[in-house]
Amino acid sequence: MFSAGHHRILSTIGRLGPMSRTDLSRVLALSKASISMLVRDLLTQGVLREQALVFGQGRPSVTLGLRSDAASFIGISLHADPVTIVLTDPYGEVLARHLQPRISEPEACFRSLAAVVEAVTREIGEGGGPVAGIGIAQPGFVSRDRRVCLASAALGWVDVDVAGRMGSLTGLPVFVENDTNALILGEQLFGGFGDRPDFSLVFLGDGIGSAHIIGGRLHRGAHGGAGEMAHSPIAIDSHAALPCRCGNKGCLETVASLRAIRGAARQAGLEDDLALLSARAADGHPDALAILHRAGAALGVALAQLVQMIDPAQLVVMIEPDLEQSVFTRVMRQEMETHVLRRSGVQMELVLRAPEPDSFAKGAAGLAAKHYLFGEDWA
Amino acid sequence: MFSAGHHRILSTIGRLGPMSRTDLSRVLALSKASISMLVRDLLTQGVLREQALVFGQGRPSVTLGLRSDAASFIGISLHADPVTIVLTDPYGEVLARHLQPRISEPEACFRSLAAVVEAVTREIGEGGGPVAGIGIAQPGFVSRDRRVCLASAALGWVDVDVAGRMGSLTGLPVFVENDTNALILGEQLFGGFGDRPDFSLVFLGDGIGSAHIIGGRLHRGAHGGAGEMAHSPIAIDSHAALPCRCGNKGCLETVASLRAIRGAARQAGLEDDLALLSARAADGHPDALAILHRAGAALGVALAQLVQMIDPAQLVVMIEPDLEQSVFTRVMRQEMETHVLRRSGVQMELVLRAPEPDSFAKGAAGLAAKHYLFGEDWA
Repeated sequence: MFSAGHHRILSTIGRLGPMSRTDLSRVLALSKASISMLVRDLLTQGVLREQALVFGQGRPSVTLGLRSDAASFIGISLHADPVTIVLTDPYGEVLARHLQPRISEPEACFRSLAAVVEAVTREIGEGGGPVAGIGIAQPGFVSRDRRVCLASAALGWVDVDVAGRMGSLTGLPVFVENDTNALILGEQLFGGFGDRPDFSLVFLGDGIGSAHIIGGRLHRGAHGGAGEMAHSPIAIDSHAALPCRCGNKGCLETVASLRAIRGAARQAGLEDDLALLSARAADGHPDALAILHRAGAALGVALAQLVQMIDPAQLVVMIEPDLEQSVFTRVMRQEMETHVLRRSGVQMELVLRAPEPDSFAKGAAGLAAKHYLFGEDWA
Repeated sequence: MFSAGHHRILSTIGRLGPMSRTDLSRVLALSKASISMLVRDLLTQGVLREQALVFGQGRPSVTLGLRSDAASFIGISLHADPVTIVLTDPYGEVLARHLQPRISEPEACFRSLAAVVEAVTREIGEGGGPVAGIGIAQPGFVSRDRRVCLASAALGWVDVDVAGRMGSLTGLPVFVENDTNALILGEQLFGGFGDRPDFSLVFLGDGIGSAHIIGGRLHRGAHGGAGEMAHSPIAIDSHAALPCRCGNKGCLETVASLRAIRGAARQAGLEDDLALLSARAADGHPDALAILHRAGAALGVALAQLVQMIDPAQLVVMIEPDLEQSVFTRVMRQEMETHVLRRSGVQMELVLRAPEPDSFAKGAAGLAAKHYLFGEDWA
């Protein structure tokens, strides 16, 4: 649909935001004549729009932005039950949202998802563009070509051709990615990180995942398994090491995940609500303090290990707001800083961000949006 | 000295080994006429040679290899005391070697190194080519442009312009890199890993370092600090956590480094010799067994964390032969495998390699060789 030249324009604007023809010519090292021709095509096709006059040196220039109705994207998150399905515009704005129970049997799962896709596509109103593709975020390992689920313990899937089956049911291009990988690609495209070549993301939920952008591209690892930090052995030396669902004990997840924190709270006879637990800790309740301290310290140690190994420019930690103001986050930050070697004056930027209910589904939509904007070579 | 086209030929042969004009044309997607012209220049300049006839389909073809006397490279390792200085050919063969005490004061250090460089350059015999550059491997953090030592605790250096000063003393191009980073670049160029886009290396010595090739390029991290695993907190939960020279306690280095192993042996009243300690462990001596078991387990856990975070295709561990056959390595491997999530049938390849006395200095020479072959864009 687009030529390589069109994709160079679209991916640059998608990555860096609206800009003038002059800036495009500079960033892409293409002549102003070539830029003008490519831009004209994209204006005619209804993908770009002229959106503002900028006054600088010389003649005022017009900035070009993506039309929000250029195309729509469907994002499906199988990260948790229920499954979240969103429809977004090219900026990641959610235009529609569906929730439905997560079905483990692949064929039944795909048929129910395809039905939602059809319904969502039918409902697109005036503001939305035609659906250009589907992204699917799922726990587990995904093939390098983003088509096949190689293994997902959470779904019980092995070698399931997700993109093939969903593609033939819907007639749309389908892209599959590990859930945390989809999350970081969504942050990169929609979250204002488009100009950052190196950053890492950690998601703290019932599981714990991480993902890395290195040199502007997602680092998947040789077997699609990079960033699997949930089962990093953290407390193996401790006498209190708990068994993990992976079969080992002392994994990070057994101490620092939300599930582990809630479980420890119940065991201590406390409410398993993060807000209540944080409030109790703030009041000085010794058990609440101990649980959040231990969990925060374990995550802080794991973050230190990540920083030492990868040395990202920014580290985004997605963490529930109920925990963000508590002793958990203070200890996490302190423990991380303690165990990171000081580098000659340079400090990594730690960014705390609250996950939204749609974070994973938006990341999934970002897969399809990225393919639409960047073409085949889309990281 | 070389054009971009020449560098494309040289870097391809440097990376993948000798090949025919036909293969070069295919790999580089350049016409056979262009390849022939570029190759003719390099033959005339005495950089390439025609070295063998290959009989395949069609006409027999001639393979082109680097002449071992095309150029020489000086590698300086400040990794340990004494300093090692080697002269190598483009294949990493060591043509000359000097050792001298490590001097901490920068200017005195550079003057003594420059004197050795001059002597080595003067001594080059018939088999060696003219010196094309100097590489320096040093502990600590190095600037992105490979010129300045930002901070090195081992040397006591902060913001030292190593390349600038050594360059004006010797008149040669100088490239500086963190010691473990230089080591992996040396393995990539000289060690048969040229065709591997993703591999990691761990060096076990008196310190512990790691480095990562990702997408064919060295991953330096945003602040040049990627791979700093020595101070990864491993045993922090344990009551036996030892203080580390970095100011923390329970760092990997306090348990698994050769210095830590020797120290624990002395404390148990045993000889601090790795071969003797391994032999005693093999005979069932409980203290020797405990020391090597604890050290191997700690390194295995750290390797598991590396593998989970980076997911390399291969992991090269450089380890003393005295330890390789001992309980240390068995426990290390077992502990690593225990803590790595099984990925659907794919296994990472663990490669054990004995460090040579010249490993770091050869890696340093590799910096200069890589610049010679690859030009400015040399990872």
